[in-house]
Amino acid sequence: MKKLAVVAIGGNAVNRPGEKPTAENMFSAVEEAMGYLVDMLDEYDIVITHGNGPQVGNILIQQEMAKDIIPPFPIDVNDAQTQGSLGYMIVQSLRNQLSKRNLRREVAALITQIIVDKNDEAFKKPSKPVGPFYSEEEAKKLMAEKGWIMKEDAGRGWRRVVPSPKPLDIVEKEVIKLLLKNDVIVVAAGGGGIPVINEDGRLKGVEAVIDKDRASALLAIEIDADELIILTGVEKVALNYGKPNQVYLDRLTVEEANRYLKEGHFPSGSMGPKIEAAIDFVTTTGKTCLITDMKKLKEALSGRTGTRIVP
Amino acid sequence: MKKLAVVAIGGNAVNRPGEKPTAENMFSAVEEAMGYLVDMLDEYDIVITHGNGPQVGNILIQQEMAKDIIPPFPIDVNDAQTQGSLGYMIVQSLRNQLSKRNLRREVAALITQIIVDKNDEAFKKPSKPVGPFYSEEEAKKLMAEKGWIMKEDAGRGWRRVVPSPKPLDIVEKEVIKLLLKNDVIVVAAGGGGIPVINEDGRLKGVEAVIDKDRASALLAIEIDADELIILTGVEKVALNYGKPNQVYLDRLTVEEANRYLKEGHFPSGSMGPKIEAAIDFVTTTGKTCLITDMKKLKEALSGRTGTRIVP
Repeated sequence: MKKLAVVAIGGNAVNRPGEKPTAENMFSAVEEAMGYLVDMLDEYDIVITHGNGPQVGNILIQQEMAKDIIPPFPIDVNDAQTQGSLGYMIVQSLRNQLSKRNLRREVAALITQIIVDKNDEAFKKPSKPVGPFYSEEEAKKLMAEKGWIMKEDAGRGWRRVVPSPKPLDIVEKEVIKLLLKNDVIVVAAGGGGIPVINEDGRLKGVEAVIDKDRASALLAIEIDADELIILTGVEKVALNYGKPNQVYLDRLTVEEANRYLKEGHFPSGSMGPKIEAAIDFVTTTGKTCLITDMKKLKEALSGRTGTRIVP
Repeated sequence: MKKLAVVAIGGNAVNRPGEKPTAENMFSAVEEAMGYLVDMLDEYDIVITHGNGPQVGNILIQQEMAKDIIPPFPIDVNDAQTQGSLGYMIVQSLRNQLSKRNLRREVAALITQIIVDKNDEAFKKPSKPVGPFYSEEEAKKLMAEKGWIMKEDAGRGWRRVVPSPKPLDIVEKEVIKLLLKNDVIVVAAGGGGIPVINEDGRLKGVEAVIDKDRASALLAIEIDADELIILTGVEKVALNYGKPNQVYLDRLTVEEANRYLKEGHFPSGSMGPKIEAAIDFVTTTGKTCLITDMKKLKEALSGRTGTRIVP
């Protein structure tokens, strides 16, 4: 009996640091990442989730530059576009890695909507910067015209900020479960899922972004996964990261994780959301979350490296 | 026992004629279309396919305008982007229409790759115009730099043409069958599917577009559908369309369809590919293809209108 894991791949699995975001480079990075994931298929059934920050940012810039000719889409539709492009890169690369090893498994990338609460506090104080930088004049015009909230980013200009509400329920969860039960490797909740609200049974997209690690934790809870695995650019979580007194952690309890989080060891732009997602999953399920570098996944799964968050 | 149908929705199900392609207008058009499709769920399990010509065209323009900042993606990735955006609009609208009628059905939009032959004659003579118009100077530069084939479009400038190869096999067909067997309404093969070649077991995207009606016929054959239903802007297929001696057809055999096609009754830019897809499906399976306006679908299914192509 295989274990079931949600595996959240990091930004460097899609764009290697320093490389231009061409399709060629991205396919190459994704295929490398899928090579590491294929190694775990003997023991695990998996759902793969991924972020989309840089990709949505690029679409927002492209839309902005063509806005006089083509009406820009709202962010929920942009999210859907990146679920398409990245989902495609992942399923194709995964099939190629499976084929290389003569493994036969079906693979499916699913468009995934995630319900958020329209009364979520996040809608009152949008915090997540997205898309291009604007001049003050343009920014004021956009705030007046479109009701956007925009903030000045020291020296770089004005940038739109959007809410990052808490994911509450995955609309397509039953389909995901069905596919998993039938041995399909699933790509879902890309970019944190497409944020939608439920108004008396009607779904409606909202201009927001859901953190991909929070979405992955919710997915892992909803499909009753045995493990949540968050892949990132570091082998282990550290205290005092990047400082002389840095300490790597093999294992931390939810209580310790909460304390270190409060103490500011895990910045909100990087390790913070991963630790929060881990706490959420481990607290709700009593199971374990593993955080490590994708290149070390095999070693980490056998217990030789990585950081485990435990009850 | 329900019948299984592949339903190809037309461009007007996504963008109503004369309306700007804003997300709001598109959601409204798609939800109207889904209303017609929900009417058939008592008797049919369905897979929904759709085109993506205008949407890919818009992405190509956006990419072109931002190309100095963001590397443009090739067309296979653009196709994937539109499978995301349109797949999202369709699944959300369909869930809303189901919910309105208190129907509970699962719905899934699937990223779909379709294999083409790299030796397909179409690669030698690209014919399908895509994307923005360029000046002669720009066009010559692009032809030299990127190896694009470009053609002058009388008076409007130069435009890229890409191959439209024959779809041979749907990579995700087993997943589609699995979902259908489990009562899920599936959205697949959007935009004719993402064209890929298979090189010794490795899939690789190609710069081409697959006709969505041909892809729909292939899908209907591969999943053993009972009917292929092609929705378009007219209630019935006509001979001498738009002329004083126009004649509507209730029913035509494959032999008649082939003859009228040769006689030039069905132009390659509109009814032609639909008739070809119908001939392909009916010849291969011995079953029936229905062509009609989505607004007349209910009447057509009960035999009161539409054109049926029969063996």
